[in-house]
Amino acid sequence: MTQSPYKTVDSETEKSSDVVWHQASVSHEDRVKSNKHRPAVLWFTGLSGSGKSTIANAVDKMLHDGGCKTYVLDGDNIRHGLNGDLTFSDADRIENIRRIGEVAKLFVDAGLLVCSAFISPFKSDREMIAKKLNQGEFIEVFIDTPLGICAQRDPKGLYAKVKTGEIKNFTGIDSTYEAPQNADIVIKTAECSVEDCALQIINYLKQNGYFQ
Amino acid sequence: MTQSPYKTVDSETEKSSDVVWHQASVSHEDRVKSNKHRPAVLWFTGLSGSGKSTIANAVDKMLHDGGCKTYVLDGDNIRHGLNGDLTFSDADRIENIRRIGEVAKLFVDAGLLVCSAFISPFKSDREMIAKKLNQGEFIEVFIDTPLGICAQRDPKGLYAKVKTGEIKNFTGIDSTYEAPQNADIVIKTAECSVEDCALQIINYLKQNGYFQ
Repeated sequence: MTQSPYKTVDSETEKSSDVVWHQASVSHEDRVKSNKHRPAVLWFTGLSGSGKSTIANAVDKMLHDGGCKTYVLDGDNIRHGLNGDLTFSDADRIENIRRIGEVAKLFVDAGLLVCSAFISPFKSDREMIAKKLNQGEFIEVFIDTPLGICAQRDPKGLYAKVKTGEIKNFTGIDSTYEAPQNADIVIKTAECSVEDCALQIINYLKQNGYFQ
Repeated sequence: MTQSPYKTVDSETEKSSDVVWHQASVSHEDRVKSNKHRPAVLWFTGLSGSGKSTIANAVDKMLHDGGCKTYVLDGDNIRHGLNGDLTFSDADRIENIRRIGEVAKLFVDAGLLVCSAFISPFKSDREMIAKKLNQGEFIEVFIDTPLGICAQRDPKGLYAKVKTGEIKNFTGIDSTYEAPQNADIVIKTAECSVEDCALQIINYLKQNGYFQ
């Protein structure tokens, strides 16, 4: 169930001049056992302004307050750090999501429940990441907010810039957003509060045995 | 002391049609408080075969067994994953270390004690990473094993391949290794067992208040 996707050297002997070297390491299973929950990535996908980051942070806070080991990957800590070298070209957008998926996988291997909040508009990119993780370790969360409401909220003022032509190739306007057809969780933010949206996700995790 | 290097939105209100959105998030300080230790990256550097990965895993196991939240970044989980697209060109070697540094920083932000085990031969690369982290969050660990002993151990058979000319640009042979001049910890693997080497690092962490 919780096999590490990476090769783990459990015991290996290397000879130095006169010292026998026993290599011991912590297995993925050991890391999982030390926490009160199973690890996974909650992969939030949705339009700009749909509420991905807000809900991801709310879920993260509930999990953290409940004693889970968690982290959030979002624009704040990825865009200017790991992916600071990437542009908005098609190839770089794919590379952006690939790297985030790889980092999420490392956090899952470390035993954490990690929320990832990026538009990730393409089905093939999301599938590529799901395939890299073990069964039950990738949970697709579709933040299903209608474009009109996203544009109305416009928390970063981006839709306004699209209107004036200042921004091109904007997801949902003149660049495709491929909505998930079989997301594990679908959240309708137009119909409930942030807290209720987050609770739906917490309930999914409980019902599926991620924690008690 | 434990400020997050990333922008954290503590409270922000966004208006949906008729719902007020309060954004709450877990701060770096919150994550640190939930663990029994301060977070940091133990940045192991040394020649191929010096014992970086072996000692990093031994330290990781001691910390894990002591209740710390830990992870190891090494060739096994980085080379074929996040950095699977990189070659051994000069530019890609720098990019390799840059990305590992950024990932280590994310793990530190998440509150973990992370061991990173890569040759990382260039002083400038190591300094670049140290600068990205807060004071006390980057601990340079020099695995100071003489080249002759590394070549004798040759756990991956690489020195043998260098001898036959199968491998070129090998660190310590025909590519420079810039030994740290002011490492926080210097480990002489030729003089003690893996366990004793690991204990020296554990003692450093205790003495410097990373945990009780």
